[in-house]
Amino acid sequence: MRALVHVTLKKDVLDPQGKAIQKASASLGYDAVKSVRQGKIFEIELDAAERQEAEAQLGELCEKLLANPVIEDYTIVSLES
Amino acid sequence: MRALVHVTLKKDVLDPQGKAIQKASASLGYDAVKSVRQGKIFEIELDAAERQEAEAQLGELCEKLLANPVIEDYTIVSLES
Repeated sequence: MRALVHVTLKKDVLDPQGKAIQKASASLGYDAVKSVRQGKIFEIELDAAERQEAEAQLGELCEKLLANPVIEDYTIVSLES
Repeated sequence: MRALVHVTLKKDVLDPQGKAIQKASASLGYDAVKSVRQGKIFEIELDAAERQEAEAQLGELCEKLLANPVIEDYTIVSLES
């Protein structure tokens, strides 16, 4: 199965990297850019017979390895066989 | 307008960070994970009257700042007003 996972900072966590990108955009002349927040995306291929099993494994993997649950949210955006 | 942009390595570019995550998954007992590729996601708020104008600005921004077009692909995944 092929999964797409988004990991983003929680809404109330500051994102200095995003802020830096917004400032860089402005200095390049793109004043229209009001805010930028950066996150990570993972394309994961995994062997799983059932969708439910794959979702459970991906959830554990996000909690343990891909995201820091204290400051980040994760979403399994898509899961295709 | 609110845009979501994905930046990922081109298919034929090696992704050592993704490989490291796949190995880490295996060492945590998740042998089902066969491959991982990592990318970036940007949530961008921008002022634009028209959708077409926003898309053009985002395209330029990706080419100049957010992605390295030599090794990375970018996609405007969504654009909502």
